[in-house]
Amino acid sequence: MDQFYISKNAKIGDGAQIGVGAVVYDNVVIGKNAVIEPFSIIGSAAKGAHKGKVLEIGDNCIIRSHSVIYEGSKIGEDFQTGHHTLVREGVTAGKSLHIGSFSDIEGDCCFGNYVSCHSYVHVGKYSNIGSFVKLYSLVTLTNDPLPPSNIVRGSKLEDGVVVCVGSTVLPGAHMGIGSFAPAGVLVQGQIEAGAVVPRSEGERILSVSSLMDFESGTRHPWMRHFKESYPSETHEEIEWINEKIRNQK
Amino acid sequence: MDQFYISKNAKIGDGAQIGVGAVVYDNVVIGKNAVIEPFSIIGSAAKGAHKGKVLEIGDNCIIRSHSVIYEGSKIGEDFQTGHHTLVREGVTAGKSLHIGSFSDIEGDCCFGNYVSCHSYVHVGKYSNIGSFVKLYSLVTLTNDPLPPSNIVRGSKLEDGVVVCVGSTVLPGAHMGIGSFAPAGVLVQGQIEAGAVVPRSEGERILSVSSLMDFESGTRHPWMRHFKESYPSETHEEIEWINEKIRNQK
Amino acid sequence: MDQFYISKNAKIGDGAQIGVGAVVYDNVVIGKNAVIEPFSIIGSAAKGAHKGKVLEIGDNCIIRSHSVIYEGSKIGEDFQTGHHTLVREGVTAGKSLHIGSFSDIEGDCCFGNYVSCHSYVHVGKYSNIGSFVKLYSLVTLTNDPLPPSNIVRGSKLEDGVVVCVGSTVLPGAHMGIGSFAPAGVLVQGQIEAGAVVPRSEGERILSVSSLMDFESGTRHPWMRHFKESYPSETHEEIEWINEKIRNQK
Repeated sequence: MDQFYISKNAKIGDGAQIGVGAVVYDNVVIGKNAVIEPFSIIGSAAKGAHKGKVLEIGDNCIIRSHSVIYEGSKIGEDFQTGHHTLVREGVTAGKSLHIGSFSDIEGDCCFGNYVSCHSYVHVGKYSNIGSFVKLYSLVTLTNDPLPPSNIVRGSKLEDGVVVCVGSTVLPGAHMGIGSFAPAGVLVQGQIEAGAVVPRSEGERILSVSSLMDFESGTRHPWMRHFKESYPSETHEEIEWINEKIRNQK
Repeated sequence: MDQFYISKNAKIGDGAQIGVGAVVYDNVVIGKNAVIEPFSIIGSAAKGAHKGKVLEIGDNCIIRSHSVIYEGSKIGEDFQTGHHTLVREGVTAGKSLHIGSFSDIEGDCCFGNYVSCHSYVHVGKYSNIGSFVKLYSLVTLTNDPLPPSNIVRGSKLEDGVVVCVGSTVLPGAHMGIGSFAPAGVLVQGQIEAGAVVPRSEGERILSVSSLMDFESGTRHPWMRHFKESYPSETHEEIEWINEKIRNQK
Repeated sequence: MDQFYISKNAKIGDGAQIGVGAVVYDNVVIGKNAVIEPFSIIGSAAKGAHKGKVLEIGDNCIIRSHSVIYEGSKIGEDFQTGHHTLVREGVTAGKSLHIGSFSDIEGDCCFGNYVSCHSYVHVGKYSNIGSFVKLYSLVTLTNDPLPPSNIVRGSKLEDGVVVCVGSTVLPGAHMGIGSFAPAGVLVQGQIEAGAVVPRSEGERILSVSSLMDFESGTRHPWMRHFKESYPSETHEEIEWINEKIRNQK
């Protein structure tokens, strides 16, 4: 029961648990209490501007099995991945980034704090994602407005944005604070703060306050009923986002 | 050419072929003639209610490479996975569950007999799936009716249901016996036995008998032309499902 | 830092870099300068007609980590895969096939030269794909016209075709030279050369020349602005495709 290959140049903090078959290359600096599961590869060689740059990951990360994380990114504490994930070079992320199984973070993008991606989420290059953002399964953030072209235009998702299962965010889209894309839509252009992305063009644009689960009586904005899922030190910031949405209406 | 790590506490029946780099942890009981391919991880530690519980898999399983199966599930004989699959804790499955490559079974869900999932199928927690169900590529069974919330409401798919490529089953949906979702739809609410899920609200609801391949003259219900793909001891049960659909119309 | 298992019967050309934990089985012939990353499996045993047949891969391949490639295919030079890919038996591919991370090539299909697939692309059996084709993330090429049935009817994508993110090509579809499917559509039947697949039935069919990025003034056909992304020896062929599209209008 051996680790497979851990570079002597990698710096891994105290309390690490490194699974069988994990590979850790040179330019890796990981904080305390890391969990790195079997068949993961940490610090894969990048090309271009990020080549040879450090991969820095904060304390308490959990990198689940068969994950691949390139060198040249800086990721905050409490980072978690599912199984079979891919994180390319040039990512900047705050604390508590969680990416689900089979997710693909293409690099050169940034995340605020407490962003969570479910499974099969694909974040294209030059995406700019705020804090407390939720991307559900099969969500894709694209960046080529005229495929194929060499134009690259990322999207911007402000704090508190939710994109539901199977939706695609088109290049250059800007989702305002607390806006919401339902399942299976194409998100394009400017989405107002606290707005629900319409399913088809020309449809009336509703506020997230119109979203309700009748059976339980629970209503959006999600800050009303989901705040407690985040640590208490974040509640003030979440309330501030909620306030912004309320003022929009 | 060694196995990587096989726990002495794991019980694996006679005739097993275990690939290089397979990892099998403690709480694992597998039947006869198992095939476990390289870089698979069997019996990963679960959290919560399933922690430390046994993973039981019946005879003749084929677990293809890079698969991850948690402890705390009970899966019948003739279980097969594709490559790069994930099966979380708390799954109960009958015989002949087949899950395709890159599929993600999130746990706390149940399957009847002869269920088959193609690739990239995501089965959310609390899904309840009958027998002879077919889920095609990129099908997602969701469970949060107001994302994000802490409400969890699984869907129920009765015997003989078919969900085609890229469709999403929304929380709490109930697909009646032998009902059919075409490619790329959102399935919600109650779908009658033998009905085709309409592509948009208000569209007339057709029976599966209206589904036909003109070129070959083949018609649904699929029990007419696909029964022979299952072993003969199942044919009576498949005929019974067919009868139920016919009586519905 | 050892390779895991490399068969003595495998033939791998000079200059290869084989990562830790790579597995290469018997019936494998790979050209010069191959890169095979950790936890990949090359030459997995096929069933049926391709059983025991050679997997032949040309010079300069890059097979990224956790990839699985079956025996019984013939793939040209400059082949590249992303991470966590799957290529089943019976593939014939020209030069410079690039398949993105988490892609699944189901086998018994063919590719021309310079085909590129982004991530999570699923190419079903009996797909017939020309040269300079681009398939974006989550594109699925299906083959069962009446799921489930035992009818298998592949699709045909001519040279220069583009299928954007999340679109599904239905069984038997034939996309003419240089035709274009936007994001999230179902492609069915015959698509004329240089046509844009309409989002809904009955919608007017536009030419790819109508596709434009206003911000940069870039226009389709893509051969106008993207030709330089391919090596100069291909430019004449790309111009020929462009000519075909222009003549169509």
